[in-house]
Amino acid sequence: MKSPPKSDQIDAAVIESLSEIVGAENVLTSPEDLIPYGFDGTAALKAKASCVVLPRNTEAVAQVVKLAASRGVPIVTRGSGTGLSGGSVPVVGGIVLCLVHLNKILELDTANLTVLCETGVITKAIDDAATPHGLFYPPDPGSMKISTIGGNVANNSGGLRGLKYGVTRDYVMGMEVVLANGEVAWLGSKCVKDVAGYSLKDLFIGSEGTLGIITKVLLKLVPRPVARRTLLASFDSMASAAKTVSDIIEKQIIPCTLEFLDKKTCASVEDYAKVGLPTEAAAVVLMETDGPVSVVEDEVAAMAAIARENGAIEVEQAQDDAHATRLASARRTAFSALARIRPTTILEDVTVPRSRLVEIVEFVEEVGVRHNLEVATFGHFGDGNVHPTILTDETDHEEMERVEEALAEIFTKTIELGGTITGEHGVGLAKKPFLHEQFADESYPLLKQIKGAIDPAGLLNPGKIFDLEPSAS
Amino acid sequence: MKSPPKSDQIDAAVIESLSEIVGAENVLTSPEDLIPYGFDGTAALKAKASCVVLPRNTEAVAQVVKLAASRGVPIVTRGSGTGLSGGSVPVVGGIVLCLVHLNKILELDTANLTVLCETGVITKAIDDAATPHGLFYPPDPGSMKISTIGGNVANNSGGLRGLKYGVTRDYVMGMEVVLANGEVAWLGSKCVKDVAGYSLKDLFIGSEGTLGIITKVLLKLVPRPVARRTLLASFDSMASAAKTVSDIIEKQIIPCTLEFLDKKTCASVEDYAKVGLPTEAAAVVLMETDGPVSVVEDEVAAMAAIARENGAIEVEQAQDDAHATRLASARRTAFSALARIRPTTILEDVTVPRSRLVEIVEFVEEVGVRHNLEVATFGHFGDGNVHPTILTDETDHEEMERVEEALAEIFTKTIELGGTITGEHGVGLAKKPFLHEQFADESYPLLKQIKGAIDPAGLLNPGKIFDLEPSAS
Repeated sequence: MKSPPKSDQIDAAVIESLSEIVGAENVLTSPEDLIPYGFDGTAALKAKASCVVLPRNTEAVAQVVKLAASRGVPIVTRGSGTGLSGGSVPVVGGIVLCLVHLNKILELDTANLTVLCETGVITKAIDDAATPHGLFYPPDPGSMKISTIGGNVANNSGGLRGLKYGVTRDYVMGMEVVLANGEVAWLGSKCVKDVAGYSLKDLFIGSEGTLGIITKVLLKLVPRPVARRTLLASFDSMASAAKTVSDIIEKQIIPCTLEFLDKKTCASVEDYAKVGLPTEAAAVVLMETDGPVSVVEDEVAAMAAIARENGAIEVEQAQDDAHATRLASARRTAFSALARIRPTTILEDVTVPRSRLVEIVEFVEEVGVRHNLEVATFGHFGDGNVHPTILTDETDHEEMERVEEALAEIFTKTIELGGTITGEHGVGLAKKPFLHEQFADESYPLLKQIKGAIDPAGLLNPGKIFDLEPSAS
Repeated sequence: MKSPPKSDQIDAAVIESLSEIVGAENVLTSPEDLIPYGFDGTAALKAKASCVVLPRNTEAVAQVVKLAASRGVPIVTRGSGTGLSGGSVPVVGGIVLCLVHLNKILELDTANLTVLCETGVITKAIDDAATPHGLFYPPDPGSMKISTIGGNVANNSGGLRGLKYGVTRDYVMGMEVVLANGEVAWLGSKCVKDVAGYSLKDLFIGSEGTLGIITKVLLKLVPRPVARRTLLASFDSMASAAKTVSDIIEKQIIPCTLEFLDKKTCASVEDYAKVGLPTEAAAVVLMETDGPVSVVEDEVAAMAAIARENGAIEVEQAQDDAHATRLASARRTAFSALARIRPTTILEDVTVPRSRLVEIVEFVEEVGVRHNLEVATFGHFGDGNVHPTILTDETDHEEMERVEEALAEIFTKTIELGGTITGEHGVGLAKKPFLHEQFADESYPLLKQIKGAIDPAGLLNPGKIFDLEPSAS
């Protein structure tokens, strides 16, 4: 990313004013305090934060934005910093607005099945709060134990239950946002149906902090499924695994989870977590179904039969909750297991129509071999969402060049297959150079027109998703 | 609606060019041909169309838009004209672009569970095409036998299955649109997850033809439920009916349909359709559950028990499909039955959080009495979406003034209850004067900023949803 040459210092008068708004103890400026705010969960992307502000309420956020707007200072908003596309990497000379202290669950409405949270509430805490009421907040991004709901909404986060339950967008009924001019607006409502005006909330969901700053989120909850069944099947080819998945869906079964690991990921997970995975298999598929007891019993039996019909090497059904958790951990620990192998772990999340999944997985493997790279792949089979993971070393420039070439080829192939360069991680900085390839028609200018209309000075997370001025990328 | 004073004639040279694009037989200009295009399904709203153009493909639509843009001629797009907010009422001196001939289903993809249609395909035809494959397109607006899918998407149409299955938005994966400059863009993809860039498709869904012209729609299908059970329960008070509905949801049952009729609607339906409704009841609730056989059997029994616990006068369960259809027709014919009573039928669709439904129904009744108006109410109990229906006579100016006052009070009360002035019909012309009351904060200017960015000349369905210039409303 090429930033315009400007000072990385923020004017002392601005720091003074920020301290007046949030209290001096909530403004960080010393180099050692700033270090953890210089990066997110994305490999090989970092920048020096100039100043971090930690407000405690919407009013303080609004005042910070008004101050920044009046002084032309850019703002990068973040929560826990678990993002995987560099979306919250600081902008030189800008304010990092960290919203982790807006962390209260404000209302759980069991009559309307909604929950109203401040933006910094941890994702998993929402489902934990819903559970005693027999309710369920399904989106479960890998980072759910540390990520904030505001970040989930800003990125429209996915998770392992997307096939049946959808993604974060499907649960957002409304939000409070601070706009670029510092004014506060409420988008959406507690109504199940609402067609008044454009769906502004839907525009802001997934806008990665570039259109406004989310301060509160109103979410839909659903009844908690009574039962769950878990199955792990291993196959000697990715094609048999894929056939199993498409046969399941053709039988009108929509499980909550259909995840896969390739051979390299299996070996790595087994080495790390010792869950008893068949390391000789070419593909392992984790299947979970939830719902009424009679339905999950029927579905798990049908899925096991379909896996066997497709030549599964082994089909293991969880006997109890602990067993199910162990099987599911095979998939949940994939990234951590792989991250131990080389210094740098580059996790992508290309997504294709479900029927093209095998093609993209095989292409990724071939590209890895051709560029002499260590690549493991796992992901959401039912969603067509693949996580090719390149194990590399960012200090090895020659190898990193090969990584860049491999990624470019993977993105191009994905788009060719009718896919998207990002299924759930967002564009941020990491995928910005490739967005135009996907938005190859007149849809691309629309993005900039909308940004220009809503944040005319371009101060909200500038340089993320796209550059406003024509750039080399 | 006050239109700027301008000629209601379109330049002869423009008509000539339109004829060259679509063929003279697809350009209507004679007064008698234009009459049916002067109104939609909304009472008391009409305008003279100057010219109707009926293209057969996207390329022709694009050429028409380019021509209109170059000559500064506004365009109002429509399908079958079943809209209920005046959204497709012509603009003086503008082109009416009628897309009913773009009516092909292009692809039904059983591997990815999607269907790709041209914009003029009739809503019900989509579900009919899905049925033989064991698939299901759930949105079922009242007009589904004649409305077009493009109109459904432009209005984000609802229907009777919203509680369990959501609305049109929940099924739109992508769309082809012709933008205000005549360029064609594709928004969205066949991917189940896609977070690349802003969700432009979500912005265009429900934008009522003001941001672009939808020419193709890619929809998600779901497995067709195996079984369905139907129940009709009558109550001596709306409060008991409401308690039944909230008890059902608190028991974690999410039926596909929870519809209600008030006493006046029941009497009118019974008089019209003779379905055997208890006309002495204060409220009748239609309940439908679908899914696996064992689940629907359990759910229908539980719902019947809950209705009885809440003092239902009568609980009737359908014994077979014909019986179910007869019970459901009580709700499906409500509007037609009421429309016979007086010359003009004004159908509103305010929506409140589910828990506030009784309050709004009682308020509507009280307002009707106070303004000496004949008002019947029915709607979607599970969605909090109420259709207060005022039976009146648009030629009686004194009565119409009372109608206007009553509607304004209903809208204000709805907003007070955290509701929306329109749950599924759209803003169009009919609800434009009230939108600002709902968007009372800084969200209102965002609507105009977006419109200004995407359609800077303001030629796409101008004067619908909001006026770009400050107006008396």
